[in-house]
Amino acid sequence: MSKIENSRKIHRHVLCLASSIVLNLFLIYKWYLGAGWDPAVSNWTRKAATEAEAVAAISCSGHGRAFLDGLILDDKQQPICECNSCYGGLDCSQFFSACTVNADGGDPLFLEPFWVQHAASSAIVVAGWHRMSYYYGDQSTTSKELQRHIRKLHDMVGNAVTQEKYITFGAGSTQLLNAAVHALSSDNASSPARVVASIPFYPVYEEQTDFFRSVDFRFQGDTSLWKNYSEAGTDMIEFVTSPNNPDGQLNKAVLQGQNVKAIYDRAYYWPHFTAIPAPADEDVMIFTLSKLTGHAGSRFGWAVLKDKATYESMERYSELNTIGVSRESQLRALKLLKVVLQGGGKDLFEFGHQTMRKLWERLNKIISMSKRFSLQKIAPQYCIFFKKVREASPAYAWVNCEKEEDKDCYEVFQAGNITSRKGHRFFAGDRYVRLSLIRSQDDFDLLLHKLNQLVSEEEGSESI
Amino acid sequence: MSKIENSRKIHRHVLCLASSIVLNLFLIYKWYLGAGWDPAVSNWTRKAATEAEAVAAISCSGHGRAFLDGLILDDKQQPICECNSCYGGLDCSQFFSACTVNADGGDPLFLEPFWVQHAASSAIVVAGWHRMSYYYGDQSTTSKELQRHIRKLHDMVGNAVTQEKYITFGAGSTQLLNAAVHALSSDNASSPARVVASIPFYPVYEEQTDFFRSVDFRFQGDTSLWKNYSEAGTDMIEFVTSPNNPDGQLNKAVLQGQNVKAIYDRAYYWPHFTAIPAPADEDVMIFTLSKLTGHAGSRFGWAVLKDKATYESMERYSELNTIGVSRESQLRALKLLKVVLQGGGKDLFEFGHQTMRKLWERLNKIISMSKRFSLQKIAPQYCIFFKKVREASPAYAWVNCEKEEDKDCYEVFQAGNITSRKGHRFFAGDRYVRLSLIRSQDDFDLLLHKLNQLVSEEEGSESI
Repeated sequence: MSKIENSRKIHRHVLCLASSIVLNLFLIYKWYLGAGWDPAVSNWTRKAATEAEAVAAISCSGHGRAFLDGLILDDKQQPICECNSCYGGLDCSQFFSACTVNADGGDPLFLEPFWVQHAASSAIVVAGWHRMSYYYGDQSTTSKELQRHIRKLHDMVGNAVTQEKYITFGAGSTQLLNAAVHALSSDNASSPARVVASIPFYPVYEEQTDFFRSVDFRFQGDTSLWKNYSEAGTDMIEFVTSPNNPDGQLNKAVLQGQNVKAIYDRAYYWPHFTAIPAPADEDVMIFTLSKLTGHAGSRFGWAVLKDKATYESMERYSELNTIGVSRESQLRALKLLKVVLQGGGKDLFEFGHQTMRKLWERLNKIISMSKRFSLQKIAPQYCIFFKKVREASPAYAWVNCEKEEDKDCYEVFQAGNITSRKGHRFFAGDRYVRLSLIRSQDDFDLLLHKLNQLVSEEEGSESI
Repeated sequence: MSKIENSRKIHRHVLCLASSIVLNLFLIYKWYLGAGWDPAVSNWTRKAATEAEAVAAISCSGHGRAFLDGLILDDKQQPICECNSCYGGLDCSQFFSACTVNADGGDPLFLEPFWVQHAASSAIVVAGWHRMSYYYGDQSTTSKELQRHIRKLHDMVGNAVTQEKYITFGAGSTQLLNAAVHALSSDNASSPARVVASIPFYPVYEEQTDFFRSVDFRFQGDTSLWKNYSEAGTDMIEFVTSPNNPDGQLNKAVLQGQNVKAIYDRAYYWPHFTAIPAPADEDVMIFTLSKLTGHAGSRFGWAVLKDKATYESMERYSELNTIGVSRESQLRALKLLKVVLQGGGKDLFEFGHQTMRKLWERLNKIISMSKRFSLQKIAPQYCIFFKKVREASPAYAWVNCEKEEDKDCYEVFQAGNITSRKGHRFFAGDRYVRLSLIRSQDDFDLLLHKLNQLVSEEEGSESI
């Protein structure tokens, strides 16, 4: 090698090294002093992001979950795992096989895996100064962006007419149910409005109406008792749950007449649980995030209303009861609905429908082996959202104990280590129980396992 | 240079270059594929963080704020600026000097700058799957971590005894006020409980009690009317607001007797607004986040209760009314209280007290020039939190129009381009108005400006 060649070689090396060092310095600058990969993620969100990611990384063995606001034991830094029922231990890895499975309650955790899959698009950062005021920019307590997204959602799914209708928000549909009863009963009627519902019905209608002990309304039991009865000056308020809780039927109002008003509880009128034969178009319709996205904890619901006076009365109820709905819940609902609306809603509703459909098929297969139990029948129906005839996929199994001796169906299931909800809570008698199908996959798997045991113990039945 | 030296030099260069390239690759890996500076901030929080930082970076000229859930105009990507009153334009840079200033309402925005200063410690990331269930790990609807922090806060401030007491949550103190009235009135009394409050009082007590039209209670006006009256079998429920809204006085219950129960509304019993002479120890005490941290939009309050039956009834109310309080609000309240508790609470309460004290002094200085208006007097008092005697710093000015001809004090202020709250809303007559001092700095500055004009127009007065 000549000296010149060597010197050139060294030069080239020095140049390379210099560029490499410059690149290094640039990268180190970006890494330490800059803001990671994205200059917009600068400072103030970092601590919150780190905390949330750390909690999300706690595994809980796939049978539980840790939360940002979970209990922190004295000697630990991180929140504890909260285990699914029948699982325990610090990391939820212990399985208690003799344990009684929980098929009670309407916790919609079957949708949790969907939100884990959509982690990036569904997360929100709430700044310390976010919406401290009682009011939004328009001096109301309701987010107009959220209202707009709710209308878009109904248009997309085709499950409700919102054109020329008012929308009011509630802390879950629970608050709206009583606000609607309050709005529909007159202050100056000669006697309290009669509030009724068709058996089997969601027990909160009665519990709430009784508990608040208004001068203006009173719960009066089963709708059918009042079918041929009408009294001038006395309002009738009929709760219609459609699809019905517990039996999944697309109920319609039974009572007719000038003094009759219906409150349609449309909590389950989503493609997860039912065919959507046509957009609902009733005067008072109540929806909830709980059974749509599965966020029961957010306490967010809305009512779609035809009549301005009803709307105004329900808004006043919300103001004097809670000064509107938590702005954090509204912010979160908006974000979740944006995810639902992506791609025409196919993602969420296909996930929801396929999950519920599969569960229903597996459950049917077991119950069909049994002579002791029967399930409600729901006919296949054309769905305008999926644009095809679809089979049933209800939120709950409404089980009838068929045998003469099984007078207390709840006890039959309890003996099989299954906690159900008693039929008489729905005013339907003790031969019925409700089993929830919308809980976690763990709960459902365990339910099927115990149910299979119960059925296989029957004489003449075949287990699977 | 010998060949060997050259070759060594080249070798050293190659080695340097190689290490530099390795470092390059490592840094590029960290930058692109890794997680920025912190391995825990990996993927799913990034989009939410970027969105929140982008919205926070919208300046709105310091006279407004953009929010994550703000309106988005058709042709824009980002939410609009929501301007403080009397400011306008796309970026809130226009000032409308002839505009009427808003001194109505109790929006606690004076604390907003504190949370902007504490951005990093007060932000939260809410994952898509956060607390979807109706229940926390212990099957209740209330966060035990939050309860624990509330007890710590009262211990630290010294404003309430929580030992051997129950704590229940509400969607703001608003929900708890009616839940308490409901709990304290018997179901089987011979006549409805009489609900009373001492003039001047917060109008919601009456509005709420009237609106819900319960069989069990009825609003019956001013406490003093019932002072020497007692009737066997009829419950009396006395609202005691302490410090009082509107006048800031540390009120005590007026009524005595076996059938009398008091609900202490302790919304303003924090060092921002009053000396804390001793820990409050009443049977029913209601607190709210709104006037503590300024987060009125979060709708979070709590009651500290001595009696188990009252606690259980209020929990049942919350369940049948709203199935507890939004889990997002509880998560956020927990985070905010953690910030408040840092360093013994000095940060927040010194900020709050100094801000309110300064406003009160400036206001007093102007009103003292006036013969037309007078303000309430609040005596200096020893504060166990600040460990010294401190002067008044109330949330509201309770203004009396002294002149014979100023019969409608509200109109006097309106003519001076100030919107106040009418005295008769507090059942105190039209010679009084309430001016809010807890709104934004913009609102307060403008209020003083208009007030100064009003006072300077008086005969014989001196403007400042």
